[in-house]
Amino acid sequence: MNTSVHARLASFISVWLLFALAVNVQADEPLPSWKDGPTKQTIIEYVKKVTTPGSADFVPAAERIVTTDNDGTLWSEQPVYFQLLFALDRIKALSKDNPQWKEIEPYKSVLNGDMKKLSAGGMDALMKIIAETHTGMSEQEFAQIAADWLANAKHPGTGKTYTDMVYQPMLELMDYLRANDFKVFIVSGGGIGFLRVFAEDVYGVPPEQVVGSTIEAKYVMNDGVPAVIRQPALSLIDDKEGKPVGISRHIGRRPLIAIGNSDGDLQMLQYTTIARNETDTTPRLGVIIHHTDAEREYAYDRKSHIGKLDAALDEASQRGWLVVDMKEDWSQIYP
Amino acid sequence: MNTSVHARLASFISVWLLFALAVNVQADEPLPSWKDGPTKQTIIEYVKKVTTPGSADFVPAAERIVTTDNDGTLWSEQPVYFQLLFALDRIKALSKDNPQWKEIEPYKSVLNGDMKKLSAGGMDALMKIIAETHTGMSEQEFAQIAADWLANAKHPGTGKTYTDMVYQPMLELMDYLRANDFKVFIVSGGGIGFLRVFAEDVYGVPPEQVVGSTIEAKYVMNDGVPAVIRQPALSLIDDKEGKPVGISRHIGRRPLIAIGNSDGDLQMLQYTTIARNETDTTPRLGVIIHHTDAEREYAYDRKSHIGKLDAALDEASQRGWLVVDMKEDWSQIYP
Repeated sequence: MNTSVHARLASFISVWLLFALAVNVQADEPLPSWKDGPTKQTIIEYVKKVTTPGSADFVPAAERIVTTDNDGTLWSEQPVYFQLLFALDRIKALSKDNPQWKEIEPYKSVLNGDMKKLSAGGMDALMKIIAETHTGMSEQEFAQIAADWLANAKHPGTGKTYTDMVYQPMLELMDYLRANDFKVFIVSGGGIGFLRVFAEDVYGVPPEQVVGSTIEAKYVMNDGVPAVIRQPALSLIDDKEGKPVGISRHIGRRPLIAIGNSDGDLQMLQYTTIARNETDTTPRLGVIIHHTDAEREYAYDRKSHIGKLDAALDEASQRGWLVVDMKEDWSQIYP
Repeated sequence: MNTSVHARLASFISVWLLFALAVNVQADEPLPSWKDGPTKQTIIEYVKKVTTPGSADFVPAAERIVTTDNDGTLWSEQPVYFQLLFALDRIKALSKDNPQWKEIEPYKSVLNGDMKKLSAGGMDALMKIIAETHTGMSEQEFAQIAADWLANAKHPGTGKTYTDMVYQPMLELMDYLRANDFKVFIVSGGGIGFLRVFAEDVYGVPPEQVVGSTIEAKYVMNDGVPAVIRQPALSLIDDKEGKPVGISRHIGRRPLIAIGNSDGDLQMLQYTTIARNETDTTPRLGVIIHHTDAEREYAYDRKSHIGKLDAALDEASQRGWLVVDMKEDWSQIYP
């Protein structure tokens, strides 16, 4: 090759490298469904601060724990929690083998679609429904039942499958955090076994990083085949005061970031962000997803029956928690 | 540079690369403290089988879960479980503020060193000691107490600190499995909060991958500072039938490899390795560490009070579990 060919080749390679670099930068632009503005900026600056080696606020990767709520934080929760809709559908399916349910509460109200009467039954009615629909079978059998429902059932309002009602900006946020060596855990009031059915496929969160309300279980050998059978008794209600307990039990490390959307997340946000003493100066981030978009999703907070956000919203400004305005901060809701 | 310089440089680089490669291969030689032979070979062949892309038995990395017992499997457990020695030392330390204990059982027996009388008190005595030494404080306070003990206490037989009584071959096995994209979980009858104090430093197992016996806990705010306080009630006894329950609760995925050393691991080994039906053909590995080395460690099995290995040893040949003979298979015990 003569010098001219060399030069042209070098020039070609340089252009190609620059182009590859540009594409790469574009692909790496974080949080595309988050509108540019102070909310997005706060998140990005926080992540840079704790992940930049040599920064005064640098936190080693092993300690980069994120805990996020699920209902109303990663997917919608209106008109009622999706897992409750699963349980009600399941009661209807099981009623074929239980004809006596037509006359017995709370099943009667479920079969008649009388939500008002059902909710008057309170915790007692709910526990009966959970026991019938969520216990007595092996963990594998339950997972199959829930997976079948999630694959086929449609949301009454949107007509979408439930796993299509996840928030695109939150999928991006979890990806962005993972790309920065954070380990993302779900910490939900929902059932741990129900969440694990879809969390890995939909959120990229493996079963061992799901914390949720938990029932007791029992190991058995049936005809020489082992199984863990779900029992009708509660081991943990992973909501409100239960969330720090669930974090302590499953993770054993205080989160760096906690994300929620309701008063059910208040204690998790406190536990994560409040300094224990004067030497406890690691910056931690509390995030609240505020449902402000009646057009693209739902708008509700202080007076909502589901996902009530009242005390935690008051505490947000005092504690410096980041409040995400879904209408203003997100350019897209669902994928 | 002339051609000759070029050639010599190329030759130098080649030699250097080969040397670097050789050093690298040497460094990568797995399980150096495992003697060459069928036991080591079985482990290496199993790992190759499930990790080689295209192999009929290939298992994706996300499903490569290993669960290992701790007492007698990762560190010694004689003359009694080290956590019990911690509890007894703690009773002695706390007796200064509890002079009445000199006259009250089971504390009196602990203070007099009367192990026979203490063990006659059974589960009831043990629970009183656990309650006094392991509950009533925050998780952080407990972790500090346990860390101080582990840093200073010495084993009555060897004079070593307890964390020096871990098995070098097991450290190598965990490293080897992690290098092959396995995720290693500890699943121990010991306390989850006690294990988490040293598991990350000593074994490279982070807190969120430790499963153990668990007590209830309660979230509180004291003078505006949040804490999770350890309660004197059991949430899970992670032993025998409790191990598959702990795996189900914390991991939510059936292990590919389970490692234990006693009948307390029998159900975990069954749960891991027994096929659920004819289509369940993924090869899974059960491993039993057999204490056969009275000279370098301890020799015990069917009749031992601690770490009794009887039913699981009988079942090992039937199930094809790999029995590791510590005396024959390990060239080194402690680091």
